[in-house]
Amino acid sequence: MRFHQIFRLIGILNLFLGLSMLAPLTISLIYSDGSFYPLLYSLVITSGSGITLFFLIKRSDYSSLSQREGMAIVTLGWLSAGFFGSLPFLFSGSIGTITDAYFESISGFTTTGASILSNIESLPKGILFWRSLTQWIGGMGIIVLSIAILPFLGVGGMQLYKAEIPSPVVDKLQPRISETAKTLWKVYLLITVLEIGLLFIGGMPLFDSICHAFSTMPTGGFGTQNGSIAQYNSAYFEGVITVFMLLAGVNFSLHFKFLKGDLKVFGRDPECRVFLFILAIFVLLVTYNIYGTAYHSIGNAFRRGAFQVTSIITTTGFVTANYEKWPALSQIILVLCMFIGAMAGSTGGAIKIMRIILLVKHGYQEIFRLIHPHAVRPIKLGGKPVPVDVLNSVWGFFILYITLFIVAVIIMASIGLDIVASFASVAATIGNVGPGFGLVGPIGNYLSVPDPGKWTLIFCMVLGRLEIYTVIIMLAPAYWRK
Amino acid sequence: MRFHQIFRLIGILNLFLGLSMLAPLTISLIYSDGSFYPLLYSLVITSGSGITLFFLIKRSDYSSLSQREGMAIVTLGWLSAGFFGSLPFLFSGSIGTITDAYFESISGFTTTGASILSNIESLPKGILFWRSLTQWIGGMGIIVLSIAILPFLGVGGMQLYKAEIPSPVVDKLQPRISETAKTLWKVYLLITVLEIGLLFIGGMPLFDSICHAFSTMPTGGFGTQNGSIAQYNSAYFEGVITVFMLLAGVNFSLHFKFLKGDLKVFGRDPECRVFLFILAIFVLLVTYNIYGTAYHSIGNAFRRGAFQVTSIITTTGFVTANYEKWPALSQIILVLCMFIGAMAGSTGGAIKIMRIILLVKHGYQEIFRLIHPHAVRPIKLGGKPVPVDVLNSVWGFFILYITLFIVAVIIMASIGLDIVASFASVAATIGNVGPGFGLVGPIGNYLSVPDPGKWTLIFCMVLGRLEIYTVIIMLAPAYWRK
Repeated sequence: MRFHQIFRLIGILNLFLGLSMLAPLTISLIYSDGSFYPLLYSLVITSGSGITLFFLIKRSDYSSLSQREGMAIVTLGWLSAGFFGSLPFLFSGSIGTITDAYFESISGFTTTGASILSNIESLPKGILFWRSLTQWIGGMGIIVLSIAILPFLGVGGMQLYKAEIPSPVVDKLQPRISETAKTLWKVYLLITVLEIGLLFIGGMPLFDSICHAFSTMPTGGFGTQNGSIAQYNSAYFEGVITVFMLLAGVNFSLHFKFLKGDLKVFGRDPECRVFLFILAIFVLLVTYNIYGTAYHSIGNAFRRGAFQVTSIITTTGFVTANYEKWPALSQIILVLCMFIGAMAGSTGGAIKIMRIILLVKHGYQEIFRLIHPHAVRPIKLGGKPVPVDVLNSVWGFFILYITLFIVAVIIMASIGLDIVASFASVAATIGNVGPGFGLVGPIGNYLSVPDPGKWTLIFCMVLGRLEIYTVIIMLAPAYWRK
Repeated sequence: MRFHQIFRLIGILNLFLGLSMLAPLTISLIYSDGSFYPLLYSLVITSGSGITLFFLIKRSDYSSLSQREGMAIVTLGWLSAGFFGSLPFLFSGSIGTITDAYFESISGFTTTGASILSNIESLPKGILFWRSLTQWIGGMGIIVLSIAILPFLGVGGMQLYKAEIPSPVVDKLQPRISETAKTLWKVYLLITVLEIGLLFIGGMPLFDSICHAFSTMPTGGFGTQNGSIAQYNSAYFEGVITVFMLLAGVNFSLHFKFLKGDLKVFGRDPECRVFLFILAIFVLLVTYNIYGTAYHSIGNAFRRGAFQVTSIITTTGFVTANYEKWPALSQIILVLCMFIGAMAGSTGGAIKIMRIILLVKHGYQEIFRLIHPHAVRPIKLGGKPVPVDVLNSVWGFFILYITLFIVAVIIMASIGLDIVASFASVAATIGNVGPGFGLVGPIGNYLSVPDPGKWTLIFCMVLGRLEIYTVIIMLAPAYWRK
């Protein structure tokens, strides 16, 4: 493990992170909201620490990053981003304690959207903008952004890329990984701009349009209103955001191929078809279930059902209804959504459709094997056999996800949370969803969770965003042995 | 699929089942409790139907039972046992509807112990005895009993044995499967007699001692008192039953080896060590958690903690405390126990320690593989590598268990149960535990579950007892294709 190299690369990330604070700094100037100096100090400290690390540590060859080093850079880079990202909250006095500020910052970068703030409308615009921007940066990945911008990282960048976007199957869109990263960011930017436009045309103020697009596309969930999207009470905004949450839950490679002219790519992709099928079934079930109980018009039931199901399954976490008042069936479907998640290669979190498909196919294969013990029948996806090591990796992910979920729930209960809050807070953070049930439900927030619980959930959010392996590997004794 | 052969064998099972009713018939004579004729009619109908099936259908070679046929016999045999086992409840008027009687009967045979009865003390002794006997028969398996008694079944009996005791690894204790079955039944009988003796010596009436031993050893949970074991309020009885629940949760092959003189077999067996370790940790955690909150003496906290944890993890379901009033941590541990279960080859249900070990080892192996991509390191248990098809089968079981659990929870919620009851009723029946939480908690029962819900739970109990594959395979289209 070459630590000097790791810290030098984290220096580069800090430099970028600091420079990204120019955007909220501009906002604070426009609105003269009093957050200029807090943001300026944060920018200087973040970039300054980056430049210091970068120049203090001698350049060595980073052409041959090992997988272990790649994972260390990504994990430490994210933890470091969480720290520097919390500075604007602290310096502006928006958040009082380091734990709370770190929680909010990590919740942003990991696109979880779990908040300890109750009155966000009182925040300075610059800080509010930074809060949404952390999600937008975190969605496609700060390291992937660096790979896109710095071609010299590209040679060893595959290890970094795989550690930050650990999809079961890596889809190389371009021969060079730096080109792939650049392409993904372009697609991401394009769809974000489209959403800003549509929200603005519908009458949402430009500032709010940008902030909401910045947290829709990464499936984040931070808003600008205390009552989330519900506060607008607008079918148009709900519709637009539902569609863009759905787009954010789709593998961005498919968007790229679509933009390249392959108009049937969504219907052809097996994972996308299952995703849309599950989504449709869930929306119909919920609509049917809440119509007549929580809502008296079928249109309203569909509107609320579609928004909430899409928001939770894509792990965005915007809300337009207090789903805790819905009947049991709808709540159970939302809990399921928290675990299932959206497509691999999307900005969403949780287990992901691709893995669910492979797990269920494996289950069926075992039934088939009992019926025909001598038949050889590999598991296929879209007509192609799935390699055994991909299946093993998916199984490993699944059991680690469940094991870490259980351990974290036990910790939360030991700290004193009730059963619902213990269960929901972990499910909503390891799945990068945001709102859960009970204490941390759609009308609650994470402020009253005791500090040790907040740190447990911070760990869960990072685990979830980096898809378990990248983080957990550093806790294995074998990782540190020569 | 040779249906005539399947029904002929089910005829044999019915004959045995009918003859086993001689025991409660004797009890009803001794106590003159008015259940003599209901039991006699049940006996005649059950045995009569068995004899009819057996003699009507011509003998053919059953030396070559296929795995498919074995599974059909076991699944249909169990469903049939549930039906004929419900006759004494119906004829005696103890239970009013067919659904309720079938529920109680299947709950007995599958050793679940979920009851629709609230005032069991009012039942005739003969019926109460039959209720406990269904558990004792179901625990080691009615088909395994037939294999033990009828050596001519032994030739094709391996298929039946594997379908009824579908442990991940089959432990052949004797060269012939009929001898293995006989050995297991002898060990089972011996430990049961030991428990009867210890309870009786402690002052429990003989009838109650027998009934409780008959539902401890199969990890059943049916009692003779309305307040379960709590009603005796005796530390001695609680202690004895805790120890025998633990014994029932251990692989019976180990008991056999121990009785053969291998005194260190429990400490050497890797699964047994993990089982005792998990049990110890859970008991300590629960004791620590309920001491000072629910109980004011450490001794009392340990006594209640040890009993409830052992009862739930072995999927027995006796209760001596209303654990719903315990703090969240203890309740979460009990929920975990419902899913984990005891050892493979024990009479307990749920996922089982053996599978949990293999799943977690697989998870760690994937971490190891990321660190050392080129190292070949098979998963081992007790020093021996685990075959890949055993691992695949365990994974298949796990995903099917979770999938069917989710489907059943959705059905229960659709029927109108609240979230806690939907979740707990399915967890407690598919895991063959018995009591759950909420509506079906330790002080509730299953009577108020609507009929479609009861049938869903009946399906879950059979699924759990026959460990998923044996039942679910018959729902696969490939099973019925030539």
